[in-house]
Amino acid sequence: MTAQIQSNEGSQTGFKTGIVISIDAMGGDRGPQAVVAGMAVSASKNPDIRFVVHGDAPTLKRLIAKRRQLASICQIVHAEKIVSMDEKPSHAMRHGQGTSMWSAIDSVRNGAATVAVSCGNTGALMAVSMIRLRKAPGVSRPAIAILWPSASAHGFNVMLDVGADVKADPEDLLRYALMGSSYARNGLNLTRPRVGILNVGTEEHKGRTGLKEAHDLVAAAAPLNEFEFIGFVEGGDIPSDHVDVIVTDGFTGNVALKTAEGTASFVRRLLEQAFKHTPLSRIGALFALTSLRRLSKRIDPRRVNGGVFLGLNGTVIKSHGDADATGVAAAIRLAFQLAQIGFSKKLAARVASGLQGREDGSSTSFKE
Amino acid sequence: MTAQIQSNEGSQTGFKTGIVISIDAMGGDRGPQAVVAGMAVSASKNPDIRFVVHGDAPTLKRLIAKRRQLASICQIVHAEKIVSMDEKPSHAMRHGQGTSMWSAIDSVRNGAATVAVSCGNTGALMAVSMIRLRKAPGVSRPAIAILWPSASAHGFNVMLDVGADVKADPEDLLRYALMGSSYARNGLNLTRPRVGILNVGTEEHKGRTGLKEAHDLVAAAAPLNEFEFIGFVEGGDIPSDHVDVIVTDGFTGNVALKTAEGTASFVRRLLEQAFKHTPLSRIGALFALTSLRRLSKRIDPRRVNGGVFLGLNGTVIKSHGDADATGVAAAIRLAFQLAQIGFSKKLAARVASGLQGREDGSSTSFKE
Repeated sequence: MTAQIQSNEGSQTGFKTGIVISIDAMGGDRGPQAVVAGMAVSASKNPDIRFVVHGDAPTLKRLIAKRRQLASICQIVHAEKIVSMDEKPSHAMRHGQGTSMWSAIDSVRNGAATVAVSCGNTGALMAVSMIRLRKAPGVSRPAIAILWPSASAHGFNVMLDVGADVKADPEDLLRYALMGSSYARNGLNLTRPRVGILNVGTEEHKGRTGLKEAHDLVAAAAPLNEFEFIGFVEGGDIPSDHVDVIVTDGFTGNVALKTAEGTASFVRRLLEQAFKHTPLSRIGALFALTSLRRLSKRIDPRRVNGGVFLGLNGTVIKSHGDADATGVAAAIRLAFQLAQIGFSKKLAARVASGLQGREDGSSTSFKE
Repeated sequence: MTAQIQSNEGSQTGFKTGIVISIDAMGGDRGPQAVVAGMAVSASKNPDIRFVVHGDAPTLKRLIAKRRQLASICQIVHAEKIVSMDEKPSHAMRHGQGTSMWSAIDSVRNGAATVAVSCGNTGALMAVSMIRLRKAPGVSRPAIAILWPSASAHGFNVMLDVGADVKADPEDLLRYALMGSSYARNGLNLTRPRVGILNVGTEEHKGRTGLKEAHDLVAAAAPLNEFEFIGFVEGGDIPSDHVDVIVTDGFTGNVALKTAEGTASFVRRLLEQAFKHTPLSRIGALFALTSLRRLSKRIDPRRVNGGVFLGLNGTVIKSHGDADATGVAAAIRLAFQLAQIGFSKKLAARVASGLQGREDGSSTSFKE
């Protein structure tokens, strides 16, 4: 059986069962090979997954045909063009039609798929997502949320925004608190997530002026929105077990994320050097091999790959640009989980209900 | 021989030789015991060091008397009061007179010591330093610079500001570039440091508006100021070997620093768990013990302890509040190195000459 090729006009896929994920197969640094390899990993672990795959049809047909697991669960949508990794967001917005990225997002827009995954350039992906999916009611700035490896029992904290927008005013930070706690509730199964705002000190008088206002807004919203507000947190608290959701602007969040990734890689390299340093330490490494592999897996950024765009009418997941099969599979796993629980609708309801009484008051009291 | 006790009125100490460091002995979380223990470590490694020690005289006399290395190289200046760890900067500024912190800075002000070291509260220390030492000509916002463990040949990069001020405009970032490269030149022996501005992407169109202006100001200043400007860098570049000085505002810098410390501690804890996980991995840890200790030392924040306040008429070093003897000794070692090379005067000359032609043009062309 071979993969079907179709246009992206209709609102239905040919799939009768399963959860459909839309894939931009052309975006990443490693090309469609890595993306299709990641899809194959996901498919072998999950019989309910289906893919709408966007990109150069002949290439994709050939790559998918090589993977037994993929043949009957993929539909290919041909896209002529590719958004390059250094393309400006404004350019992608104006000239993006016909690209695999645009087409992948349109599958969410027209209801053919529930969640889209792309390894493409973050700025362009956010820009195209914004114009095709539009911002959800009540949201002025969408955010990118990630799962941050942490000492907590569930293994991760939620951090947002890690780079959708370099600015965020106090009202945006309130929405991030609502969206982030909804993500923690649905993605990490926490009934009452603990939310903190990132600052340079935990005392209330510290930090920027806007942060004090955000502090008061989020504190006031906590009782009605089933999260606990723990006040300001510092950089050192991000991987800790005394906060679940860390709220910050996209500039600070992006710097923090990349600093943490850089630090973890730096320590990992030092560790490798330490084990190669003497014959004794080489023997030590052999004995500890399994445990070290487990550690390496735990702090491997590929395995927690996937920034979720929150605040749009539909869910888009940004994978690392240089993701390999393992990385792409991690992003797809996350997409599948969120699609399965109907996250997009729950999130929209949560934001609308969280802002109820603050704005037009017309939103109904949906519950997650 | 016992330590002398004297008032802090005169501008001279009784020391005939050596380099004098002023110590706030009361500021830290662990009290004067830890500070005096750190002084003893420094003294045993360096015969040229002398101390003016500020705090409760009877306590200090007793603690110093127990340390053979310290007896003849310490002068005690009695200070009744202590700045608490949670005291607001504005309160310390108005009511700080008579505290060990104030007194320690006054020893630099009146010329009795070259550099002051305190484990006290950062905000208060900066506030008191600003009113007692005043800002250096041409500086509008002082900065705190630290040495960041890195993959470069000299083992460290310079990062500033890590928390003196939550804001920095483009002109401040230019001064940070000048001060940071002077610190790298003097502290790391780099003749032509590579300077980068921290941003969320390396492309020139990315990031906040002020950062683009800073980019152009720093680029224009580079040729005359013996540093190389490499443009924007990202969080992941901070511990890398392709930049020497990372310039950012104090909010972002503080979050990045604490995030990195938090990440390194988190990875260190995971590593310990990995080695305890199975009997085999425990044996492995035994074999690799020396190498692991070397690694642990390399990423131990205590051993790179010491934030240097730049942009004042005199040098003040902030040690971690919870520094133990090892941490205090590291901060004192840094103070001694900077005092030895006459860093404070070189830095002032560098900033004045770097801004020459941009402002009143009256500064002379000192060279470091």
